[in-house]
Amino acid sequence: MPTLRFNPTGKTISVAAGTGLLDAANEAGIKIDAPCGANGTCGKCAVRIVEGIPETDDHGLLSSEAVQAGYVHTCKSRVGDSDLVVEIPARCEKHGQFADAQKDFERINPALFPAEWQLNPMVKREYLQVQAAAAEDGLSDWDRLIQTIKENISDYEIRATVLVLKVLADSLRKENGLVTVWYTRDRNILKIIDLKPGRDDSEYYGIAVDLGTTSVSLILTAFPSHQITGIKTDYNRQISCGSDIISRINYARKQERLEELTSLALESINGLIQAFITEQKITSESVKSCVISGNTTMTHLLLGLNPDHIRLDPYTPTFLRVPQLKAAEIGLDLHHAAPVYISPAVGSYVGGDITAGLLCTEIEESCDEIIAFLDIGTNGELALGNSEFIISCACSAGPAFEGGAMSCGMRATRGAIESVSINPETGKSKVITIGDTKAEGICGSGIISLIAELSSSGWLEPSGKLSRNPCSCITISGRQATYTIVPEADSRSGNPLVITESEIENVIRAKAAIYSACMLLINQVGIEPESISRFYIAGGFGHYLNLENCITIGLLPDLDRTVFKFLGNTSLVGSQMLLTSKDFQIRQQALSWRITYVDLGSDPEYMDHYTAALFLPHTDQSLFPSLNRNKS
Amino acid sequence: MPTLRFNPTGKTISVAAGTGLLDAANEAGIKIDAPCGANGTCGKCAVRIVEGIPETDDHGLLSSEAVQAGYVHTCKSRVGDSDLVVEIPARCEKHGQFADAQKDFERINPALFPAEWQLNPMVKREYLQVQAAAAEDGLSDWDRLIQTIKENISDYEIRATVLVLKVLADSLRKENGLVTVWYTRDRNILKIIDLKPGRDDSEYYGIAVDLGTTSVSLILTAFPSHQITGIKTDYNRQISCGSDIISRINYARKQERLEELTSLALESINGLIQAFITEQKITSESVKSCVISGNTTMTHLLLGLNPDHIRLDPYTPTFLRVPQLKAAEIGLDLHHAAPVYISPAVGSYVGGDITAGLLCTEIEESCDEIIAFLDIGTNGELALGNSEFIISCACSAGPAFEGGAMSCGMRATRGAIESVSINPETGKSKVITIGDTKAEGICGSGIISLIAELSSSGWLEPSGKLSRNPCSCITISGRQATYTIVPEADSRSGNPLVITESEIENVIRAKAAIYSACMLLINQVGIEPESISRFYIAGGFGHYLNLENCITIGLLPDLDRTVFKFLGNTSLVGSQMLLTSKDFQIRQQALSWRITYVDLGSDPEYMDHYTAALFLPHTDQSLFPSLNRNKS
Repeated sequence: MPTLRFNPTGKTISVAAGTGLLDAANEAGIKIDAPCGANGTCGKCAVRIVEGIPETDDHGLLSSEAVQAGYVHTCKSRVGDSDLVVEIPARCEKHGQFADAQKDFERINPALFPAEWQLNPMVKREYLQVQAAAAEDGLSDWDRLIQTIKENISDYEIRATVLVLKVLADSLRKENGLVTVWYTRDRNILKIIDLKPGRDDSEYYGIAVDLGTTSVSLILTAFPSHQITGIKTDYNRQISCGSDIISRINYARKQERLEELTSLALESINGLIQAFITEQKITSESVKSCVISGNTTMTHLLLGLNPDHIRLDPYTPTFLRVPQLKAAEIGLDLHHAAPVYISPAVGSYVGGDITAGLLCTEIEESCDEIIAFLDIGTNGELALGNSEFIISCACSAGPAFEGGAMSCGMRATRGAIESVSINPETGKSKVITIGDTKAEGICGSGIISLIAELSSSGWLEPSGKLSRNPCSCITISGRQATYTIVPEADSRSGNPLVITESEIENVIRAKAAIYSACMLLINQVGIEPESISRFYIAGGFGHYLNLENCITIGLLPDLDRTVFKFLGNTSLVGSQMLLTSKDFQIRQQALSWRITYVDLGSDPEYMDHYTAALFLPHTDQSLFPSLNRNKS
Repeated sequence: MPTLRFNPTGKTISVAAGTGLLDAANEAGIKIDAPCGANGTCGKCAVRIVEGIPETDDHGLLSSEAVQAGYVHTCKSRVGDSDLVVEIPARCEKHGQFADAQKDFERINPALFPAEWQLNPMVKREYLQVQAAAAEDGLSDWDRLIQTIKENISDYEIRATVLVLKVLADSLRKENGLVTVWYTRDRNILKIIDLKPGRDDSEYYGIAVDLGTTSVSLILTAFPSHQITGIKTDYNRQISCGSDIISRINYARKQERLEELTSLALESINGLIQAFITEQKITSESVKSCVISGNTTMTHLLLGLNPDHIRLDPYTPTFLRVPQLKAAEIGLDLHHAAPVYISPAVGSYVGGDITAGLLCTEIEESCDEIIAFLDIGTNGELALGNSEFIISCACSAGPAFEGGAMSCGMRATRGAIESVSINPETGKSKVITIGDTKAEGICGSGIISLIAELSSSGWLEPSGKLSRNPCSCITISGRQATYTIVPEADSRSGNPLVITESEIENVIRAKAAIYSACMLLINQVGIEPESISRFYIAGGFGHYLNLENCITIGLLPDLDRTVFKFLGNTSLVGSQMLLTSKDFQIRQQALSWRITYVDLGSDPEYMDHYTAALFLPHTDQSLFPSLNRNKS
């Protein structure tokens, strides 16, 4: 029987030849959306065949480029004789964690974006009129180009690649000496990235990348307009090698596996770049700059650096800040000489995603007020401070809030429960799913909603134990109880969706890790939680989070609700700011230097804080006065 | 019949299968030395098979590396069924133009070499003790390395390749933080080329390259001792695409042919590097720096730049000076990050070989005296001046002095006539050959000797016509006369070696081009030839030149003989100076800026000077007073 491997999860099954691809995927537990009823008309079930050849009836709506790239409709394809490797593309679902990142821009204080006068992109373009060659002056083509640049742009030291030299002679002679140059400045050196004859006023592009542990997001920006022309998100293909940072680091301990992780990170980014290129009919040559923000482990893996010392005492990464690199030396499919700026990290577990994210807050310039910034993803990172000081730390939230630690957990895509309400009398749930379809599983915001509702309705005790009162939804087996969220009749798969007490415990541990990290930083600074005037929550996860639920389960401190603000993917938005403004890069470098990194693991108080938080909402109920008020 | 192509000349013949390779080469007119009598014991007749497979009896003295590289003894191999491409290696003959370049060093004023305190190689090595990682300081590996470099080397901006970052973490932890770094400085940036754990005190190397139109010479220098460990010369493999600069430029007019020329230049250099690596048992990784000096066309072709505008009015090259490049971006088989310095050119026909060569003279610092520097190769380049001014020009000598323009001309290898004396009574010649063997042909110094002797013995008239007096060596056929240098009985091939009047005319044109260029520069400066206090003659050709003969034929001006000095391959020796001293690179840059380039082609006086010099020694005999004195 042919074997099918589904990426990025790496799930493998064997099915009989002739099995429909859609059925095979279902059998493997891969949910593929085919809303048109397998008619090949909606194009939503398309997957990419990476290896092997399936039998395909027709290509329906797929463009010829897509077909060439290996895309087929799963509803119109069958397994043939050969083994297949099938890649499931992640889509920007309308409702879901991977949602419209464009909304993220609206959430952020408009005053924080680069002002008109601060727009200073990494790569600029200039039209230059270079004087014709003349025997008298004894100047070469390069000499005259330099002279023109020094007169018109700056008298920096000027450098170019051999490729620029190769086109120079002919370019200078094609349009009477009028040429277009694209250049970047790196300290006091001006590097010519590209040169073309005549006035080339077509758009050129830059890419901002958020390289997350679970997902990778890209923004494509056109220059010189600085207009965003596309946003895309995909899984980080490294997922098949481990779901969190520590498991990736462990995986990378063999050289060939480190190389595999590097390739997978590059494939994730390059795949999205390719998607932009195909959709927008542009060339990779035209993408001339790049900013990448990611946690410290992700940037190490991207560059192929052994991340092992991040995990080992004294937790020292190879680099926090790295000089500007070139696309070709990293392996990015952009213009070969495109400069790549990597956001500086603060420590082994507070990375460039956080220093980019902080640009979306007022922390840098806030004088009197204290600002908190919490980024919840596979890891939770927190920064606290103002223009005087900034302190930061990280804790491991694990996959609990990303649907990864439960039997019925799933990512926030179509069919995932994102909100739950519980009837206090019967204990029965009512769920809302993404896309209003039958429930297939539960995602992070759904889990928080579920725990909060169970807790406030009294069916879940502060200790994390389900009520032993008679309830049709709670099944008790020995010492373990299980709550049925969706009975089999209402579930898409026909199996009930349940949560066990040990799964609830995992969620409590995750929320305790984040809450106690917050409290420890607040204590270390010596302030009261109430002194925090703005509390920003970032992360793809942060999109659909219900604030009240977060406080109910004790994930966030019980502060005035107006203090909180969800920001979305600040690492991505911050990267886009950095792409359009070198001034912001300088600010970010300065910011990263002045952040104090606190290693929670080596702080003896952290364990006490953590243990005290392993309750719903907390062992010390006085920390959650508003909840007590509501109850009474 | 299988076809054989012999490189680098590209000569092609078809022979029957079974023909010995040595015989086939002879039939193609390729002289291969087999002094052991085709016994496979001397190893001198080895050639490299580039394409096809010959039948080979045994490999005699060849090492297994050589056999693997495709070498066979021609005396032990036959043509089989397949076509062959055979590469004839150029050897460092004991007597010959390709001779012991080591002697070149002895010819040069020792005060001109970098003094001990000026030794400042392009790539330096340092042992650094980097502090151990510590949680308290919050410094990454890269931060601590930078800190150590700033404390111990300099506080330049510091850069490294991704490959250096890749080995950093493990290297810092292997020998308690002791690491060896190799670095170069480029303006105010310190670039780390390589990094290894512990104290690596093994030798590392640099390559100095003279990239000539006809031949390519390399010096391998070991660091930190600055000792020369090898010198090698080979043909420039571009020869098969044209013997002089103009024919190469014409050849390069199609993109794929330009690329071919670039590959051939790289192959020529890389082949010699590989020979060093094999012989000295070193790695290409250990060769960490490179200086290349060549004429403007050669450096353009090396970098793959269209050289066409060098040939076209107003004769403007793409570049004269180019920023420091990296080995990998050029395609040199050295350490990928090895910095490559290319000697600056002065104009389209006065290249980096001349600015490197001038470092072997006192021209830069000479206050009162005027110094002339003449480099004779396929082109002749001349510079004249002192610390106040330098003026330079170039003229095309063509292949006449390199044995390329005569039916019996050959390169200065074994069997070439290098000196001739003529009996004034009989007109018969007595020849001296390189290696004291039977004469096979005549090389450049032999040609000059022949013309000088014929002229001073009266058998050649000042106009370049052979005497019509009865002489057993002169055959007259219609209006053309031919002089037999070696009768068939004494020639190795059994054919007589002769020179025709039209061949003599070619030599006269070549010497007239050089002499008139000298006179034009002298006139332009407004001095008398006698004001020149030192007249240096450089070029591989210059080695075996007889000064008196050169003046006799009017190639050099008739000055006091003590003024002249032969220097040998100054482009190569100058490149080696540049490799060991960045201070010399700075001096060379300054020197190249202050040289005034004179385009002879656009000077109306040049034609008059040239025409007047088309006589032996000159139409104006008063310019050669010492010759008249000798006669009277």
